[in-house]
Amino acid sequence: MIDMCPIDYKDIKLFLTDVDGCLTDGGMYYTREGEVMKRFCVYDGMGMVLLRKAGIRCGILTSETTDIVAKRAEKLQLDYLRMGVGSQAVEGRPTKLQACQEICAEMGITLAQVCYVGDDVNDLDLLQAVGLPACPQNAMPQVKAITGITILEHHGGDGAIRELCDKILNN
Amino acid sequence: MIDMCPIDYKDIKLFLTDVDGCLTDGGMYYTREGEVMKRFCVYDGMGMVLLRKAGIRCGILTSETTDIVAKRAEKLQLDYLRMGVGSQAVEGRPTKLQACQEICAEMGITLAQVCYVGDDVNDLDLLQAVGLPACPQNAMPQVKAITGITILEHHGGDGAIRELCDKILNN
Amino acid sequence: MIDMCPIDYKDIKLFLTDVDGCLTDGGMYYTREGEVMKRFCVYDGMGMVLLRKAGIRCGILTSETTDIVAKRAEKLQLDYLRMGVGSQAVEGRPTKLQACQEICAEMGITLAQVCYVGDDVNDLDLLQAVGLPACPQNAMPQVKAITGITILEHHGGDGAIRELCDKILNN
Amino acid sequence: MIDMCPIDYKDIKLFLTDVDGCLTDGGMYYTREGEVMKRFCVYDGMGMVLLRKAGIRCGILTSETTDIVAKRAEKLQLDYLRMGVGSQAVEGRPTKLQACQEICAEMGITLAQVCYVGDDVNDLDLLQAVGLPACPQNAMPQVKAITGITILEHHGGDGAIRELCDKILNN
Repeated sequence: MIDMCPIDYKDIKLFLTDVDGCLTDGGMYYTREGEVMKRFCVYDGMGMVLLRKAGIRCGILTSETTDIVAKRAEKLQLDYLRMGVGSQAVEGRPTKLQACQEICAEMGITLAQVCYVGDDVNDLDLLQAVGLPACPQNAMPQVKAITGITILEHHGGDGAIRELCDKILNN
Repeated sequence: MIDMCPIDYKDIKLFLTDVDGCLTDGGMYYTREGEVMKRFCVYDGMGMVLLRKAGIRCGILTSETTDIVAKRAEKLQLDYLRMGVGSQAVEGRPTKLQACQEICAEMGITLAQVCYVGDDVNDLDLLQAVGLPACPQNAMPQVKAITGITILEHHGGDGAIRELCDKILNN
Repeated sequence: MIDMCPIDYKDIKLFLTDVDGCLTDGGMYYTREGEVMKRFCVYDGMGMVLLRKAGIRCGILTSETTDIVAKRAEKLQLDYLRMGVGSQAVEGRPTKLQACQEICAEMGITLAQVCYVGDDVNDLDLLQAVGLPACPQNAMPQVKAITGITILEHHGGDGAIRELCDKILNN
Repeated sequence: MIDMCPIDYKDIKLFLTDVDGCLTDGGMYYTREGEVMKRFCVYDGMGMVLLRKAGIRCGILTSETTDIVAKRAEKLQLDYLRMGVGSQAVEGRPTKLQACQEICAEMGITLAQVCYVGDDVNDLDLLQAVGLPACPQNAMPQVKAITGITILEHHGGDGAIRELCDKILNN
């Protein structure tokens, strides 16, 4: 299932990312009503807009289910949004890896043509399966230790996603 | 009461932490209605989820009483939440040390089997009493000066708690 | 159209800036209602107040259209606020360059007398046209690569604008 | 009016501070309703609580007038809160220097016994008049250039006030 050949950025047809810690700085803003806010980054948004203009589909995979993320995905006109997907199948929902495989099947591409950005242990399965795994500088040690992973210079929520988008677009 | 023998991470049965400056970056977000928001960290949340899966109970001790913290504790399904506890008994409420002793009695463990994370002068008593005292990098000098305290590399609200959870889980 | 002669800070009659990443740290704060908040910087506000007292008009050019920015412009009593202007004309709205040219015509000045602060690819046209182009330290590489651009030491939302205001006022 | 003799921390009877950039990180959080939120720091709050326990009165002087600050002052039970005071008298309101002089008269102390923390040009008058002028690391260059000013290691909203409180308490 895993393509061990070196990936060419030009082969990427699908760009997927986790949310907390990747598209955000990992901050969970709570009021007395629970988590109410997330802080995204303007540069990341522009990065995915540019990817989509270049014909690369973009999407979000997250273990949480929240309208906050849905609103951000809507604003950026992302192609895919799969919430409630984690490292283990729960209540009939697919894992992140399964959700990605479903999208690949729909697009008629392979996992080798996918770029995925994750930062924590529930991202390990998918990161090890895609052609271009990447993580922000602030990712957990277990993630940064994945063989061949691209460790971005920027932190999540501070341009890590944009940095990767530019790498893909400029190569 | 204090076990001066070197603690083995494997002995820890209970993980307790202060809130402001430990589970958050110390930021107190105020509107015209007073403090309305706190910024927690996704990595710390995952850390305590992993500790609980490994059979270590988790809880929060804080001098404030606020639904913001209650919501975060509920989300993480923490075992203990004691609010309004400080360095001195007030209005019949126990101190942090007394609250911890009550939990230990309930669990049938000793203070030597407790890990506590604190960052300010109202945490000194409890930090000096537990088997594994720890503090984030941004803790007050009086806290960092405690003999044998584990000074974490990360700041509060930026992964300090997760760093410690991983230390406990990996040793 | 572009004055290639070295600009004298004393020639500046109009100070314009982009919003996200320049007047803010690039953070997009989302709730379930979409983007609801931006974080501006007190020092930048004072900087534009001081510029206006010195007779230099100030304004904002932004591709977004949001009451959040309108409120900040109102508070600072800015002379110009043009929202919905980008790198390409959309739905009859001018580009940032065109919007700037309109203001120049109104003021009877040339682009050489304009200072503009931008940070991303949709600012390139205008930055290359004005007499004093500048960007915060966190600007995109494509922006920082502009010949003759002033790269500020501070980040957007953390005093970059004020740093530039003081440069203009003190020279 | 200015006591040029070296101040002894023990002489301080009154501790006053500006808000934005000193008690906060300078962030101005705007929604479509204008500025709605400020981010204070838990350590600074504890610092002023400790000062008050030691018999030193504490207060806030700010050019803005907002319930956000009033709520924070109330929470910390500060002795003085003077809003709408700036570097120049406006609409019958006193300047920061005048407000401080009024408080001194009320307390029967001199400006030499006052510690004031400020960070911008509208704080210069008062900073040059008090016995112990101080500023956070992120203060404007004009403030840091004041002769004899204590430049704190921490930034505003990140413990600068607490650092100074501890200096006063420990000396």
